[in-house]
Amino acid sequence: MTQAIEIIKPQVRRLRAYTLSPHRATVKINQNENPWKTPERIVQETARRMTDRSWSRYPDFVPARLRECLARHAGWMPEGVLAGNGSNELIQALLMVTVGRGKRVLISEPTFTLYRQVATVLDGEVTSVPLTGSLAYDAALLRRTIAESNPDVTIICSPNNPTGCVLPDDELRAILNAANGLVVIDEAYHEFAGHTVVPLLNEHQNLVVLRTFSKAMAMAGLRIGYLLAAPELAREIGKALLPYNLNVISQTAAEVAIELYESELRPLVKQITAERDRLFADLGQVGGLTPVESKANFMLVRSRIEPRIVFTELLSRDILIRDVSSYPMLSEYFRVSVGTPDENDRLIHGLEEIFE
Amino acid sequence: MTQAIEIIKPQVRRLRAYTLSPHRATVKINQNENPWKTPERIVQETARRMTDRSWSRYPDFVPARLRECLARHAGWMPEGVLAGNGSNELIQALLMVTVGRGKRVLISEPTFTLYRQVATVLDGEVTSVPLTGSLAYDAALLRRTIAESNPDVTIICSPNNPTGCVLPDDELRAILNAANGLVVIDEAYHEFAGHTVVPLLNEHQNLVVLRTFSKAMAMAGLRIGYLLAAPELAREIGKALLPYNLNVISQTAAEVAIELYESELRPLVKQITAERDRLFADLGQVGGLTPVESKANFMLVRSRIEPRIVFTELLSRDILIRDVSSYPMLSEYFRVSVGTPDENDRLIHGLEEIFE
Repeated sequence: MTQAIEIIKPQVRRLRAYTLSPHRATVKINQNENPWKTPERIVQETARRMTDRSWSRYPDFVPARLRECLARHAGWMPEGVLAGNGSNELIQALLMVTVGRGKRVLISEPTFTLYRQVATVLDGEVTSVPLTGSLAYDAALLRRTIAESNPDVTIICSPNNPTGCVLPDDELRAILNAANGLVVIDEAYHEFAGHTVVPLLNEHQNLVVLRTFSKAMAMAGLRIGYLLAAPELAREIGKALLPYNLNVISQTAAEVAIELYESELRPLVKQITAERDRLFADLGQVGGLTPVESKANFMLVRSRIEPRIVFTELLSRDILIRDVSSYPMLSEYFRVSVGTPDENDRLIHGLEEIFE
Repeated sequence: MTQAIEIIKPQVRRLRAYTLSPHRATVKINQNENPWKTPERIVQETARRMTDRSWSRYPDFVPARLRECLARHAGWMPEGVLAGNGSNELIQALLMVTVGRGKRVLISEPTFTLYRQVATVLDGEVTSVPLTGSLAYDAALLRRTIAESNPDVTIICSPNNPTGCVLPDDELRAILNAANGLVVIDEAYHEFAGHTVVPLLNEHQNLVVLRTFSKAMAMAGLRIGYLLAAPELAREIGKALLPYNLNVISQTAAEVAIELYESELRPLVKQITAERDRLFADLGQVGGLTPVESKANFMLVRSRIEPRIVFTELLSRDILIRDVSSYPMLSEYFRVSVGTPDENDRLIHGLEEIFE
């Protein structure tokens, strides 16, 4: 008789689960979260509305009000919007309806590790092109690889996690024109770049844009993301979303966050990008460290001392960063999220001690 | 150049999306929800704890406290528990790590339609065996089909939606012994049957049990489900769960619901099962209707008048039921959830008018 475990696909058994070290620290700058608490006005208004809603009933089959909110916020049509539990759920749905054995997924590396993980579970063949030596997108190489290998799906995170580089619009246009398959732009960090590719949705039927509430919107704990695409395409991707996927409280919170974005959240984004520039300048002053310019709310730092040791030294100072030295090309790098001004001061101070 | 839509797998394009009519009514007995509002003590305690937690931070990588709560509640070990957005997310994860082209999924029909939908999206071959003429599980036929066709995954909903039939333990044991593949028992309605197959997990490494908070636990709106299996198997299935899948508020609510289950929720379950028996007796008194005995919080009703017409007539009386006449074997049936005593009175009264 077969062992139960042998029913699991071999490529899944070979896969190391996506994990994160369970360390804790007061200064938590390892996950590119918004360093501020969700604004109190948003929390209170969400709490007020959510106790009006009956928790014992399923959410609406189509979350129409949320979809309209998201569409208005993003500048796209409601029929082309799908909401989910983080953008992760939407990339999974997209890959479920496109990828199977013999299907090809193209990514650029280093990048967010989940794309490869999900595509692999789904029997897809993942190929990747490296960033340039200066950790920028190699648009010419991407375009050439697309022309040659004709991937079913190409996934580009822009600004990219963990490098912070952005794919310029004209390069993306050329890629969209060269691609027979879908091209996904993960805009998890777009607010910090002050840039979006949403306008390109009008001209390119094969473009899909992903967004999240986990970064600028200060709601990583509520797991909200959305997808923007041509309505026909969104409808097909939606077939892989589970019915009632998004709970009523996260739906409510998302609506409130959008309503109060200008007054409550945009000022935080402005402060974070100002702090990013300050942090970049300060890190550049520490001997042995070279920060990498970033359009997101985090940045890579090249380190003369082994990243693993910097990680441990900072943790002993109650500061939790991300050691990304196991990523391709990044053996000499660690990543820090932009924190509050005080957190950034503490990071700089800690690094000065370590590198003095 | 390829049309973007052609990148979507053909079997997905052919699939009709899982949909639900957007009708609304005061008496909503179409989704097998708990007819009562989530108990106020549970709502208030959840609200109190949730504003303590920072929404801008990701949930813990492993929701350890919730897992322990669920394990204690179910009588299983924490390492064998996975939590997700409804049991739907867990059946999807299980099928993602087991099903691809050439893989076989066996179900019994009529049953919950999602199993076939997800397995089809994942390129699996779905075969089904019918229930008996009296709408009970045909355990002998299931066992014979498993022996002959050796499915990778067999999924059995017990009590079954939409029939309410239960697979007896001794029949399940024989099936588990005959199966080389995994056997999933969806226990969405187990509280209403007062029966669980969890004890069988100790002897059978190929058994997987699904549970939900959407029915007895009165939290369909918060999307909480869990899976119980051998730790080794749970670990592999967990690789297809997205990181941070369950938001912090639903996690908190689940913990509170378990803590207060005995005082707040069990009495509701008791009342619902008593009402189920009363409803069964009353429906049997209406000429032209034959209710089907059920171990869940709903029942099928065989109807002399076309179910579509009964549906419309009841809707005009502000009562929303489920027309299941398009399901295999059920062309003469509709389904009603057990409501509050008052809702059940209104249903009986409405049916008496229609069938008089």
